[in-house]
Amino acid sequence: MEMHRLDPRTSVPEALRAVLSRIRPVERTELLAVPTAAGRVAAEDVTSRVPVPAFPCSHVDGYAVRTRDLKGVSATRPVNLRMVGAIHAGECFPRALAAGETVAIATGAPVPHGADAVEMFENVDATGRSIQFSLNVVPGENVDPAGGDLASGTRIVTQGTPLTPALIGLLSLAGYGQVRVYARPVVGVLSSGNELRPPGPEPLPYGKVFEANSAALSALIEPNGGVPKVLPPVRDVASVLERALRRALAASDMVVVSGGSSVGERDLLHTVLPRVGTVLFHGVKVRPGMPTIAAESGGKVILGMPGHPASCLSNALWLLVPAVRKLSHLPGDGTSRVRVRMARDTPLHGHGFSTVVPLRIQGETARSTFHGSHFITSLHPANGYAILPPAKRHLRQGESIYARRALFLGGA
Amino acid sequence: MEMHRLDPRTSVPEALRAVLSRIRPVERTELLAVPTAAGRVAAEDVTSRVPVPAFPCSHVDGYAVRTRDLKGVSATRPVNLRMVGAIHAGECFPRALAAGETVAIATGAPVPHGADAVEMFENVDATGRSIQFSLNVVPGENVDPAGGDLASGTRIVTQGTPLTPALIGLLSLAGYGQVRVYARPVVGVLSSGNELRPPGPEPLPYGKVFEANSAALSALIEPNGGVPKVLPPVRDVASVLERALRRALAASDMVVVSGGSSVGERDLLHTVLPRVGTVLFHGVKVRPGMPTIAAESGGKVILGMPGHPASCLSNALWLLVPAVRKLSHLPGDGTSRVRVRMARDTPLHGHGFSTVVPLRIQGETARSTFHGSHFITSLHPANGYAILPPAKRHLRQGESIYARRALFLGGA
Repeated sequence: MEMHRLDPRTSVPEALRAVLSRIRPVERTELLAVPTAAGRVAAEDVTSRVPVPAFPCSHVDGYAVRTRDLKGVSATRPVNLRMVGAIHAGECFPRALAAGETVAIATGAPVPHGADAVEMFENVDATGRSIQFSLNVVPGENVDPAGGDLASGTRIVTQGTPLTPALIGLLSLAGYGQVRVYARPVVGVLSSGNELRPPGPEPLPYGKVFEANSAALSALIEPNGGVPKVLPPVRDVASVLERALRRALAASDMVVVSGGSSVGERDLLHTVLPRVGTVLFHGVKVRPGMPTIAAESGGKVILGMPGHPASCLSNALWLLVPAVRKLSHLPGDGTSRVRVRMARDTPLHGHGFSTVVPLRIQGETARSTFHGSHFITSLHPANGYAILPPAKRHLRQGESIYARRALFLGGA
Repeated sequence: MEMHRLDPRTSVPEALRAVLSRIRPVERTELLAVPTAAGRVAAEDVTSRVPVPAFPCSHVDGYAVRTRDLKGVSATRPVNLRMVGAIHAGECFPRALAAGETVAIATGAPVPHGADAVEMFENVDATGRSIQFSLNVVPGENVDPAGGDLASGTRIVTQGTPLTPALIGLLSLAGYGQVRVYARPVVGVLSSGNELRPPGPEPLPYGKVFEANSAALSALIEPNGGVPKVLPPVRDVASVLERALRRALAASDMVVVSGGSSVGERDLLHTVLPRVGTVLFHGVKVRPGMPTIAAESGGKVILGMPGHPASCLSNALWLLVPAVRKLSHLPGDGTSRVRVRMARDTPLHGHGFSTVVPLRIQGETARSTFHGSHFITSLHPANGYAILPPAKRHLRQGESIYARRALFLGGA
């Protein structure tokens, strides 16, 4: 058995930069019904088709008036106007309001031509059709002018903007039933290793392991904008891996491989990747996750992750997630940066490399959930993580650090 | 036109409690392929089918040894063992290791019977089949014992746990290809109002508005665990609304109606809801969003939201989202609480009620995006919000408050 030592030369920021600089966000677009487009990214600028509101609109229940009819009005000098109708939302008054006239108007209904304000119903005395006003009313009072929220032709969405629930509402209000968004990038997910067996009720032969990385990676790809495409696991044979990789590349916008990323005899990625593309780096100065390799082929990035599920997932957090997000036109790494205090002393195990520490963040306190880099149980209680620099040997209890809180890890 | 004043008596916490106490999380379950179950909630406890690792496993590339063969070894007293084979991942050595023997072993491969440690390949001198050891090796070194990460039969998922990417990986490792999760609750979405027109290229008649609430509410329901079921808008006719509500209730686990929630002549919810169920409250001491009504019918909650898109969406953040999440077995309100400083002086407009302030949170700073309760453009730059108590009249520049940051609003 040939054995080699992997001597990584690439730091975490260098690895991230190398990968992100090769990622080209997908250019394919699709037309979606607006209510289903939340979380997707606009592929074009959108301007409002109509002003919002589309007409001068009452924002109270009351009486539409011509304010000049109410000049000098006061409690001691009330003015009576004649009610000539009522306007509910969705209706419109068929003519201009004439001198001495008022109309009852509901919230959301169009203020009739001629009228320039609405008095709230609580402030008048109504006796049949005679409406008595005793408070001053200024032009524009309780009226949202046409286009006051949004003028027609205003740009409401810029190409590249993720569509939030409020933007979905705004697009609808502005008259759009459909919106053009970027297609979700397809991320091929390939696991390699003779030891892998599909999880299921079949007994596990001695020496084999249930294949977990494709499921865990899919679960990270999906909430970060990608469509995971899980491919059948491949055996540790260079020609087989090469063929599978080429097929995966043809069918995806990016490929992530787990297993075979180190330098052992059956670690084939460093042999196969140069045949398929250009290797960007092999080995990252980070623990866990050091034996990581990346390549680029025909404008597509291939990430080779360590086969151990804990290292694979740890790497995916800081390397795969930002890559998938960039491919998807989504910003950042999907986390929010929060300042936290460490709940207890936490030794780091970087041994001169950066350390990725999985964290359980609660309020402004965090505790490491790490209890061994070979333990996937180190990761599942975490709702965030921190990357500590190589020089950092441990975190003291009460020490304040920046952590990355990730809803996609399940932490609310 | 009949006009009334709504005099709300219910505070924000009371309204939330009244709704949440009536929500019964869905009991329906479904069996899903594990890789597609991320974000869903486990409907049963799951225990590991196998120990993880399933066998004593090397976590380095090196040589498996019987440590008693290396007693007293040192640089000056090296020991030579005979290499009798090699074990790659997925293979197993066919017999127990005998005295004086060693086998080459790859990371992830099973340590053969008889052997009790693995020496890293960097620490030996290999000459053909003769392997020279010169460092002390302790029992267990570089070996993950069977079940060291997870003993067989360990509970890995508890009923009610949301499935994170790490748990998806753990379920797979533990031998599960499928997992039973709670069904996603169906949330009926109904808009009411004669003024509503479906968004689209058709010109908007004067006095009408494009219907936006069903799209915006769907966009909030979906990332919080629910399946929005948008129903056709209904006209302001009590019998029509009642029929539509009953149909919506029959087809959903909860119903949200927008429009008609106040006390105007065409605000029909307060008339119709008592026929369909029990009204929980009508009017909440909050701005925006005061004219909100809630009812319960046959164990299902109905929320009636104001028709104005900005008020409707604002209410949905603190009332609908937690309700949908509870229905979905998801905890909390989908936000993370962060301490922020206000970037500038911000007057509040609660006028004696609580105020919901939409916030753009960046790092530890927040600014209000509110510029008028009738403006949906007040909301779309927000990636979080805060609810300020009635007594609070304004926020000073630099003042520190707790804000709720919401990834579902698009803020990373």
